Amino acid sequence: MTQNIYDNPEFFENYGLMERSVKGLDGASEWPSMRTLVPDLRGCRVVELGCGYGWFCRWASGQGAAHVLGLDVSEKMLARAMAADPDGRITYRRVDMESLELPVQSFDVAYSSLALHYIADLDKPLTTVHRALAPGGRLIFSIEHPIYMAPTHPGWRVDADGRKTWPIDKYSVEGPRTTDWLAKGVMKYHRTMGTTLNLLIRIGFALEHVEEWAPTDRQVTARPEMAEELERPMFLLVAARRVRTLLRYTFAAKGNGAMQTLKTLLWFDGNAEEAV
Amino acid sequence: MTQNIYDNPEFFENYGLMERSVKGLDGASEWPSMRTLVPDLRGCRVVELGCGYGWFCRWASGQGAAHVLGLDVSEKMLARAMAADPDGRITYRRVDMESLELPVQSFDVAYSSLALHYIADLDKPLTTVHRALAPGGRLIFSIEHPIYMAPTHPGWRVDADGRKTWPIDKYSVEGPRTTDWLAKGVMKYHRTMGTTLNLLIRIGFALEHVEEWAPTDRQVTARPEMAEELERPMFLLVAARRVRTLLRYTFAAKGNGAMQTLKTLLWFDGNAEEAV
Repeated sequence: MTQNIYDNPEFFENYGLMERSVKGLDGASEWPSMRTLVPDLRGCRVVELGCGYGWFCRWASGQGAAHVLGLDVSEKMLARAMAADPDGRITYRRVDMESLELPVQSFDVAYSSLALHYIADLDKPLTTVHRALAPGGRLIFSIEHPIYMAPTHPGWRVDADGRKTWPIDKYSVEGPRTTDWLAKGVMKYHRTMGTTLNLLIRIGFALEHVEEWAPTDRQVTARPEMAEELERPMFLLVAARRVRTLLRYTFAAKGNGAMQTLKTLLWFDGNAEEAV
Repeated sequence: MTQNIYDNPEFFENYGLMERSVKGLDGASEWPSMRTLVPDLRGCRVVELGCGYGWFCRWASGQGAAHVLGLDVSEKMLARAMAADPDGRITYRRVDMESLELPVQSFDVAYSSLALHYIADLDKPLTTVHRALAPGGRLIFSIEHPIYMAPTHPGWRVDADGRKTWPIDKYSVEGPRTTDWLAKGVMKYHRTMGTTLNLLIRIGFALEHVEEWAPTDRQVTARPEMAEELERPMFLLVAARRVRTLLRYTFAAKGNGAMQTLKTLLWFDGNAEEAV
């Protein structure tokens, strides 16, 4: 069972004061980067894992998604999300990601923002997401970057010469990390980048983009305090695509003028769709 | 032009004293992990970028590779490699990786150990390697991990409580890093993991394995001083496969009993070969 820290009154109240809670997507510094990873949503079936207040769900709906399903473990967050969608265009459901179930091949895009690092075992939910995506379907997510999460005592250190450093330890020791962020005893799960990426590959995703988010020059100019985000990455953004759909085809192929009969099981790469 | 620090007499001499120089592959702590990424080499055409003393080239030849080509920018290293292969089973060639040229689709496996971080611009050499691989061919390489390379002042810091940390800064500021390792002014090029992985994807490699190397429990038991390698990763190991070979095929496909004629350009995923 996931910790469900968002239903902790102190956490919920403090989270509500964050810029991204007040302003929504535009209050999240990594959103411009995340947005470029999201495909055209018109007519798409979209699921969000850890939808929170529902900012992304409403945006997806506004982009023309055919159907949007928002999932979260927190009743308080879902109540806020539903209140912000009086017309009921979005479907919200309370789900503990660790026991996630979704219908097979029923979504085109799965999205998750800063939620998967609360999950102890990603294998099961990501396998469920893979099966729930149509062939060629996209998974786009962000998590806290392992460099940010790993340390026993996370936090900046300032050297005598004024240089800011982020002291890493225990990077290769995966497992729970407890921090006092917004409330005491918030539990997150540290995995190396390699572990997360290899899990996706093993499940049958092709990696399309891996971004260790850093602010742009423009963002730093607008908000000089963001410069420290260049010293160590805070967020990891990943875009992947469901591949390895097994086509049971017997086909005769004409290559170089000669007819060849090929009996084969073909692992169909979702990318091929674009070349047709 | 690459710096060619290996031909610096001081560097060359000191490098020769390292365990991996004296003992070869078995003297490199990450070799057991690298080895699992290398496919069966029997009958394979193998190229190594930055072959050094030729330890891997000789191993590949011993594994039954049909042809092994070792490339390095250092004359001194190549002289040693050639001296260690009196029968001339391996072809060695002096090449600056920045102006690398290789014949098209002429290799099954490209390998590189701790060499690519000396190259300022990886785009050109990796594109050349992609073209030089047969469809489905493998690229396996290690580089110094960006966490290891990024800091302005790399090195351990020990806290009052005895905790060892690795203070990171400038992680998102890519470019040259000068260190005094074995000789003064050794020039390496820091790139984030995301930058390296996205470059591979863009060129047309499918990522198969991403490993931020750490010692196993067994290695730490055998050599307790290796425990510090769990605090921050020193090496990044990557296995990728050449995909996206465009097949110009017209084929008739039999699916679910019905015959369909499909005219298509198919992006052929190298994985499909295994499913035949």
